[in-house]
Amino acid sequence: MDKIIRVNMNDMTTKLEAVPAAWAGFGGRALTSTIVAAEVPPTCHPLGPYNKLVFAPGLLTGTPASNSGRLSLGTKSPLTGGIKESNAGGTSGQMIAKLGIKALIIEGQPKDKDKWYSIALNKDGATISEETDLIGKGNFAVVEALTARLGKKVGIITLGPAGEMKMLTSNISVKDPDSHIRSHGRGGTGAVMGSKNLKFITIDDTGAEGVQIADPEKFKAASKVFSKALVDHPVDQGLAAYGTNVLVNILNEAGGLPTRNFTYGQCEFHEQISGEFMSARIKERGGKPKHGCHAGCLIQCSQIYPDKNGKYLTSGFEYETVWALGANALIKELDDIAEADNIMDDLGMDSIETSVMFGVAMEAGVLPWGDGRGVIRLLKEEIGKGTPLGRILGGGTEHVGTTYGVTRVPVVKHQAIPAYDPRSVKGIGITYATSTMGADHTSGYAIATNILGVGGHVDPLKKDGQVELSRNLQIATGAVDSAGMCIFIAFPALDIPECLPALVDMINARFGIALTGDDVANLGKYVLKTEHQFNLDAGMTNKDDRLPEFFEQPVLPHNAVWDFTGEEIDAFWNF
Amino acid sequence: MDKIIRVNMNDMTTKLEAVPAAWAGFGGRALTSTIVAAEVPPTCHPLGPYNKLVFAPGLLTGTPASNSGRLSLGTKSPLTGGIKESNAGGTSGQMIAKLGIKALIIEGQPKDKDKWYSIALNKDGATISEETDLIGKGNFAVVEALTARLGKKVGIITLGPAGEMKMLTSNISVKDPDSHIRSHGRGGTGAVMGSKNLKFITIDDTGAEGVQIADPEKFKAASKVFSKALVDHPVDQGLAAYGTNVLVNILNEAGGLPTRNFTYGQCEFHEQISGEFMSARIKERGGKPKHGCHAGCLIQCSQIYPDKNGKYLTSGFEYETVWALGANALIKELDDIAEADNIMDDLGMDSIETSVMFGVAMEAGVLPWGDGRGVIRLLKEEIGKGTPLGRILGGGTEHVGTTYGVTRVPVVKHQAIPAYDPRSVKGIGITYATSTMGADHTSGYAIATNILGVGGHVDPLKKDGQVELSRNLQIATGAVDSAGMCIFIAFPALDIPECLPALVDMINARFGIALTGDDVANLGKYVLKTEHQFNLDAGMTNKDDRLPEFFEQPVLPHNAVWDFTGEEIDAFWNF
Repeated sequence: MDKIIRVNMNDMTTKLEAVPAAWAGFGGRALTSTIVAAEVPPTCHPLGPYNKLVFAPGLLTGTPASNSGRLSLGTKSPLTGGIKESNAGGTSGQMIAKLGIKALIIEGQPKDKDKWYSIALNKDGATISEETDLIGKGNFAVVEALTARLGKKVGIITLGPAGEMKMLTSNISVKDPDSHIRSHGRGGTGAVMGSKNLKFITIDDTGAEGVQIADPEKFKAASKVFSKALVDHPVDQGLAAYGTNVLVNILNEAGGLPTRNFTYGQCEFHEQISGEFMSARIKERGGKPKHGCHAGCLIQCSQIYPDKNGKYLTSGFEYETVWALGANALIKELDDIAEADNIMDDLGMDSIETSVMFGVAMEAGVLPWGDGRGVIRLLKEEIGKGTPLGRILGGGTEHVGTTYGVTRVPVVKHQAIPAYDPRSVKGIGITYATSTMGADHTSGYAIATNILGVGGHVDPLKKDGQVELSRNLQIATGAVDSAGMCIFIAFPALDIPECLPALVDMINARFGIALTGDDVANLGKYVLKTEHQFNLDAGMTNKDDRLPEFFEQPVLPHNAVWDFTGEEIDAFWNF
Repeated sequence: MDKIIRVNMNDMTTKLEAVPAAWAGFGGRALTSTIVAAEVPPTCHPLGPYNKLVFAPGLLTGTPASNSGRLSLGTKSPLTGGIKESNAGGTSGQMIAKLGIKALIIEGQPKDKDKWYSIALNKDGATISEETDLIGKGNFAVVEALTARLGKKVGIITLGPAGEMKMLTSNISVKDPDSHIRSHGRGGTGAVMGSKNLKFITIDDTGAEGVQIADPEKFKAASKVFSKALVDHPVDQGLAAYGTNVLVNILNEAGGLPTRNFTYGQCEFHEQISGEFMSARIKERGGKPKHGCHAGCLIQCSQIYPDKNGKYLTSGFEYETVWALGANALIKELDDIAEADNIMDDLGMDSIETSVMFGVAMEAGVLPWGDGRGVIRLLKEEIGKGTPLGRILGGGTEHVGTTYGVTRVPVVKHQAIPAYDPRSVKGIGITYATSTMGADHTSGYAIATNILGVGGHVDPLKKDGQVELSRNLQIATGAVDSAGMCIFIAFPALDIPECLPALVDMINARFGIALTGDDVANLGKYVLKTEHQFNLDAGMTNKDDRLPEFFEQPVLPHNAVWDFTGEEIDAFWNF
């Protein structure tokens, strides 16, 4: 029987609760956003006693479905002030699902602000323990110590030093199948975990019942169709070959690769930070060009990037990070970017928020443009040690902009804009503006149709069709995030007719129900509307659905400007 | 003939414009708020090219009316994100009025971000000059140098180093009759002046026509009645005797003196920071216990506070500053607070925002509670020099809270809550919540009726009548700020029947018009509604009209909590 586990950090109690009927049909993002909307007062202080952390595996997480291993996290974001959902791979999601835990709700704050705690999940429920040894330690040390303490199989959700310091750049991190780090990224969710004095959560699925499938035959058949669609799609093949960093050259070609803190749309040294270059280097150095963030992934867009001596340097090394420290901060040496990525993993910092921040810090004169060694030094010596400068930088993109009076600050709803210039790729601009999450490419990845030719083509430089495109993608993403699926299933889902019905069939077979495609679309709409209402109740308005003023300045090579009116953007919510 | 002077910092032009008919009846706050609402896009970046700085003398500024020498400043605040009006004494307001300048509008930004400028106003208009010598200099050095350059009579509006660095604690400062500093306080207006690379404005009223009075006899008669009311009122007598710092003992007695970053409502060492103690010390050391911030002031609540050796230490040493560094930051030595006050004057920092910030910084562990020498060191060595720690602290109360993850952060609309605990003095809480300015005691000084027995009595500990009280006071203040009057005329205006009609008579005699008391009240309503609409258009909602969550915790000695519902607060706007 599925259950809710509720952990109260104020009175240090844990409870098993039955799943309310209204929540039974939800998983992943639909469930975490529903619980946050139901239980967290929208105007509460995100680091105060009323905020909660909610973890939930997706509807298919823990099943043999390909690419279904995502764990959703929901909370009120201390960065955006609105609702936040962030899902990650790693091993914890599947283990939590197999334990029959529909959602883990962590609420309240310890009375003693100087003590730190951990939560252990197993087949009997949850226990809270005081933790002393690992406080202040980086994520790699935590994973290593807990593996030694509890065995190699243990699932780990961990808070790095950035989250302990309640920095707005902090993530909540999860152990991946190789004991490396994946992240519940964006929105400063680590600060919420830090405000509850919670250092880590361990998961032991020994003796777990596992995920029951109502109609195994039907599931298997649908799963086969679904898997074939994934491996057949050319974009997923590209991701498999080069990782997400395949996008550097593509975006540079499109003139949408933000360069020097969003001053230009192309970067002259794009080749030396490209996915092609990276993949060749990984092979040459004996690294792993392909790697899955969770068991059952067929795409394997991740990789293990070694240093010159063939030693592990980083993994899960994404396009957005390479772009932000490369083109946008003008760092030419990929090894420096990789080293910075690894430090961010260890500190538990969001690599988009942090890396975009460095562009603004360079604009403010904190360090020279392109100073890769400077970034590494600031991460280690200032941010990691919580010095005053480290606290400024740890506050993220907007915080640095405010601190130094910079006006070219690429954020929406206080969250950094990622790797695609909204002037030259207008569909993603609509997503940045309207996403309930703040600027977030994953919430409605219009690059697919604007640039990659997936799901048809919408001209990236024209306004026509962008609002509809972003709306459809955001609705679909709401459903995908609820299923526990990796967002990269969206490419075949848009192009290969059998893919989406197979996904719906798997959900139906899992639960013994009979959803239609429309039901799934309606789930996506429900997710967006629930989140949007939370944001409105928190005090946001349509004025928060706007890009920064500086995007009125034209960007080369197309001399493109952001020219949507407020009214045009607001039409997004007409559904 | 009255005129508008428009200075464009982008193309470096100055223009004289006729006063539009719609603006003719306005002065002071009514005029600056009208111009900001008409010309500044509410959603623009406050430090970007679209924000403007608007200065306007009040309707009676420059006349012989007592206490009428205020100059209003309007802009979009980089601290609150909403409209900001701030008026100050000093000599500039009267000189600008005598030059027939109805408003000075400064717009645009220089193309060359490395060059700094000054504006000179005289009977022929305005000229812009490049400035090099005084960049980076403190306000006292600027006043001294400009006096040497231009003579003792010159009016000076100056930007301190905090404003040059675009800190959110920065003020725009004005020279007072003794060449000391008064401030357009709150809201980080200095950062806007800094964003226009404008270091100072000088005013030379040689050959000015002066303010014409339509009916001098009527004006004289009304002025006499008005002046008598001012000197007769006991509260103004108390202010004259002890300065605003007379409030320390009064608020402590009422249990409304926020202590240790708003943890308690009374301070055990209140006597040694009290107005009575201060006044005795000033006399003993040969200082000036009474001093006016502008010519024609009958109350003279200011003072010159000397050090142990009788040397000038500070002036304009207000209750709110003494409270914030004294009771709220637990600094017991008044000389340390005075020294800090003087440094803030020199740096051009808001003494409320900065001093309340130190309470939060102490809560964050940046320096020990009560460390007066530490505050002085941080002001001089960190903030003044723009070090990383200085930048954090210079960002103000909320910025420090966010940087260090502190949740007890006393702000409304991002602006620091001043010297009166809203739990124990509930009327002022309604003002903090609803003021268009962010937390601001001056915008509706409910202390008058809650604590001082002026204008009747409304029990400070009960909710009854507080919304109406704050509304009436805020409307009246909107009108007083438009007349160019000191806010302390409100006490006799509330209690002495002849006072308000005499004020209306002076306005009528000045312009040859026939306003009634209702017209003046309607002016106040117009001001509030214009400002409120600007804030709504900037993206604020009723959720911004709320006090921080921590005020739900009871405060001694009354165990009072902030218990207004959102609905009760929102009723404020029903007029």
